[in-house]
Amino acid sequence: MASIQATLAAGRPVYSPSSIADPFYVRILDTTLRDGEQAPGAAMTSDQKLAVARKLLLLGVDVIDAGFPASSPEVFNTAKAIAAEIGNAQGAGGGHVPVISAMGRCARRDIDTAWAAVGGAKRPRICTFIATSEIHMKHKLRKSREEVVAIAGEMVAYARSVGFQDISFGAEDSLRSEKDFLCRVFGEVIKSGATTLIIADTVGCSLPSEIGGLVAYIRAHTPGIENAIVSVHCHNDLGLANANTLAGIEAGAREVEVTINGIGERAGNAALEEVVMAIKCRREVIGGFYTGVNTKYISAASKLVVEYTGLNLQPHKAIVGANAFSHESGIHQDGVLKFRGTYEFISREDIGLDVTSEPGIVLGKLSGRHALKSRLSKLGYDLEGEELDDVFKKFKLLTAKKKHITDDDIEELVPGKYPQSKPIWSLGDFQVIHGTMGFSTAAVKLINSDGKERISCSVGKGPIDAAYKAIDSIVKAPIKLVDYTNSALDGIHAISLTQVVVSEDKSYTPAHFPSEVANGHTNGHAVSEKTNVHAMSFSASGEDLDVVVSSVQAYLKAVNRILVKRIPLDV
Amino acid sequence: MASIQATLAAGRPVYSPSSIADPFYVRILDTTLRDGEQAPGAAMTSDQKLAVARKLLLLGVDVIDAGFPASSPEVFNTAKAIAAEIGNAQGAGGGHVPVISAMGRCARRDIDTAWAAVGGAKRPRICTFIATSEIHMKHKLRKSREEVVAIAGEMVAYARSVGFQDISFGAEDSLRSEKDFLCRVFGEVIKSGATTLIIADTVGCSLPSEIGGLVAYIRAHTPGIENAIVSVHCHNDLGLANANTLAGIEAGAREVEVTINGIGERAGNAALEEVVMAIKCRREVIGGFYTGVNTKYISAASKLVVEYTGLNLQPHKAIVGANAFSHESGIHQDGVLKFRGTYEFISREDIGLDVTSEPGIVLGKLSGRHALKSRLSKLGYDLEGEELDDVFKKFKLLTAKKKHITDDDIEELVPGKYPQSKPIWSLGDFQVIHGTMGFSTAAVKLINSDGKERISCSVGKGPIDAAYKAIDSIVKAPIKLVDYTNSALDGIHAISLTQVVVSEDKSYTPAHFPSEVANGHTNGHAVSEKTNVHAMSFSASGEDLDVVVSSVQAYLKAVNRILVKRIPLDV
Repeated sequence: MASIQATLAAGRPVYSPSSIADPFYVRILDTTLRDGEQAPGAAMTSDQKLAVARKLLLLGVDVIDAGFPASSPEVFNTAKAIAAEIGNAQGAGGGHVPVISAMGRCARRDIDTAWAAVGGAKRPRICTFIATSEIHMKHKLRKSREEVVAIAGEMVAYARSVGFQDISFGAEDSLRSEKDFLCRVFGEVIKSGATTLIIADTVGCSLPSEIGGLVAYIRAHTPGIENAIVSVHCHNDLGLANANTLAGIEAGAREVEVTINGIGERAGNAALEEVVMAIKCRREVIGGFYTGVNTKYISAASKLVVEYTGLNLQPHKAIVGANAFSHESGIHQDGVLKFRGTYEFISREDIGLDVTSEPGIVLGKLSGRHALKSRLSKLGYDLEGEELDDVFKKFKLLTAKKKHITDDDIEELVPGKYPQSKPIWSLGDFQVIHGTMGFSTAAVKLINSDGKERISCSVGKGPIDAAYKAIDSIVKAPIKLVDYTNSALDGIHAISLTQVVVSEDKSYTPAHFPSEVANGHTNGHAVSEKTNVHAMSFSASGEDLDVVVSSVQAYLKAVNRILVKRIPLDV
Repeated sequence: MASIQATLAAGRPVYSPSSIADPFYVRILDTTLRDGEQAPGAAMTSDQKLAVARKLLLLGVDVIDAGFPASSPEVFNTAKAIAAEIGNAQGAGGGHVPVISAMGRCARRDIDTAWAAVGGAKRPRICTFIATSEIHMKHKLRKSREEVVAIAGEMVAYARSVGFQDISFGAEDSLRSEKDFLCRVFGEVIKSGATTLIIADTVGCSLPSEIGGLVAYIRAHTPGIENAIVSVHCHNDLGLANANTLAGIEAGAREVEVTINGIGERAGNAALEEVVMAIKCRREVIGGFYTGVNTKYISAASKLVVEYTGLNLQPHKAIVGANAFSHESGIHQDGVLKFRGTYEFISREDIGLDVTSEPGIVLGKLSGRHALKSRLSKLGYDLEGEELDDVFKKFKLLTAKKKHITDDDIEELVPGKYPQSKPIWSLGDFQVIHGTMGFSTAAVKLINSDGKERISCSVGKGPIDAAYKAIDSIVKAPIKLVDYTNSALDGIHAISLTQVVVSEDKSYTPAHFPSEVANGHTNGHAVSEKTNVHAMSFSASGEDLDVVVSSVQAYLKAVNRILVKRIPLDV
């Protein structure tokens, strides 16, 4: 125990791509902005991704996966902005400046684009990958083993030649790859300059013993492995992502890929909060490992990601679910009242969840300067004096207009911290009449950014259908509603919170999307994979005392996001 | 592999409390109706619990935990009804009649009540428990080690004396108990007649290696252990419940306690679908184990539990989440289109999720006899001839009134299978006017069970607030709304689905709740624990084209459930 404490006190080891000075330190790579965003309907705007990246900086993650720049100009611009701002900022845990990683296939065009995107960070990294399982090489890549080994080695060398010193190489579908072939590929890329090797359980079908066994095998049989870090990337299809990640660490992995709330493709990725809290709470049992994550920002980061992605958490989600700390049965309640340790071993404070950040206790017009200061601090903004006065003044003005002030609203008040796109259409007035008569009638007044008013009405199946049709008749945007949920916030039916997910209509062709990227054309090895050319989808939320008004607000915000998206960003 | 196939072909071993003929067979105990229901707001009515128990019979679980009968007369009556019906019915997997288990503390009164509740089943079981960790013995029980050993042995012997041949003994907080003390307690209860020993990770803080190590230790150091089955009960506080359960099996546990959707206290229990599918899909790697669960009913069971408990699943929930089988990124979509095995290893068919059970493809007025027959079969009702004609006739009548027919609706049509309580108040007409003017006005006409009409109107903050106030002014029930969510079903904003959770107002004292039970008074050893005396909560749902009408329906259904609850059931 004494040596562990001494190690912790020493803080995070100085970053070096291919080695870690302290054998107990585990690096956290967050891929919420890349794999997380691949969940259906979870696409985030550039502004939202920057806000998430700021939270990752507060959390003190070692590496931020900023996306797959070759997939679209929008992802490219966002990764570039993250590299410029977050990739040069001092984070938590000893002021670590996070590594900013960009993904790219084993192809020159992808690697060039990745360097153009993240080369401006203090610690740029590329994560390049190729599939190594027979099933993927045969059915997807249509390449032989020899070709795959050659491409991997050449492209890692190419990444080094364009400027990357920090190169992560991922073997897609590692768990279904032939072990010795995998060691051969890894040995080849280490020779070419790879510094991290990712073992990816792409289909999420592994058991902890398999991941552990594979990590141990790779470490025992890969030539040059002492010059690289082994990383694991686990999916949750069998509900084992956290256990698999921990098994990887126990077998020698010293970097793990996770997402906030465990979001991602299908059943998602290993959850940052579960992996980090398991390591933190059970450190002695797990072997003395530790991370550089400042866990008190977990709750705030979790809420932000729910808000932006629209991926709600089930009440029984571990660590961050609404019920994670609740006790319903009489026996448990009794035990907790007698001595909290009887049924709890993680404290609310550990993850930044204290009474003032509960949904039941929100900031409003009666909240004072102290409450605002405390909430700002929880969100990572330590304001004092004039700067605080200024934000407090804006806060008071906001409370006059809005009863329920979200953390998001508060962040918008902080100068320069949270640029918001100006809405193209805003809501003037709205009225609806409906019931059990079989149809509804809605009238809406919208104001465009030039101040011009437009009024329209529509009949619909229900009040929301009628309202959305009335908006559509004014806005005329190529938009499709793909998901809609509504819940009561802040005491029952006092405030209705609506979340919608919209996507561009498929018939719409984006005017500013260069065709060579959209077609997946590459200048290097032409691997037969397509980039992300499906319609982008966005989530947005609205809050009002009236469920139909909150639905109108959410839809209008989403419509504005789609419309803003059509305006090209600076490259 | 050959021996594994042979074992499977042999089917489920014949049930015997203290031994299992096949060393590869793992028993599944489902505790959705007991630990699952302990999740906040998840209380189910007696009818709902019976419907869930019928699904468990279809799934072919070995043991159904029917609840804690001494906690309330309502739980007692429900367990008795489950024992009578399900406890004497032929289930799946070789016609296994499920064991019906009742929980009771180590106290004569609890044990007597458990026998009175489940003694009518073909295979009655008691699960009695006491805490064995220092922290629990000291702070909660306030008993010495000697006292705990004595109580455990005496009470297991007492359970045998009242009639139980199948006795499960649980050591609460096992993972924080002193190992040799635990072996001593277990040895004592085996001597007294216990047939199953439960290792419970009550606080959910364990790692797989700890559970595995403890199971192995218990099996090596408990006198008489060869005459008992070891079971594990894992919670998900660190997101490791499934991994811990599997680690228990690998170390020698042959019974596991799970819930549908992983619901339960705090972050919930190990999920039935995750444990069962991991064992099924990775059988060779995991050691050749198998269960008797018929996985094709997983999807239907999951949906039923969501509907009844109101505990929605996150989209990325493993196995049963909405996104569990979806592929968003272009690369993955491309791979799946080329060869499904590239990214999928569990098939939708495995868990009973095929195209016709998708939310997008629902039964309606255009659906024919064949579609209804197929859906009924999926729900576990194989109807033919006249019986099918009769249900089809009722189905056609229903489609004229209701656009979106749920599985629940369909089950209600099956004669004798699904008794519904007659509503006390039903909805006549409803009208509301609202918008951005700052208040809403709702008028409602309700019809009571005698056919009498009542009309009332109310002003509220929003349309749902106004509507609920109008209902309250007629019904005058001691009801409190504790949760409200709304989502779009069946194509966007075509159908609005509202789920509400209500509870009795705390000021209300139930007239038919015997005071000696409410006070936790027991005739045996007076352990200092309180029973479940908190207000019961119920969830209910409504569906309509109009979000406010669906909200009114859900609230009214919930109000009826609370009102029905106040009428005592036969004991």
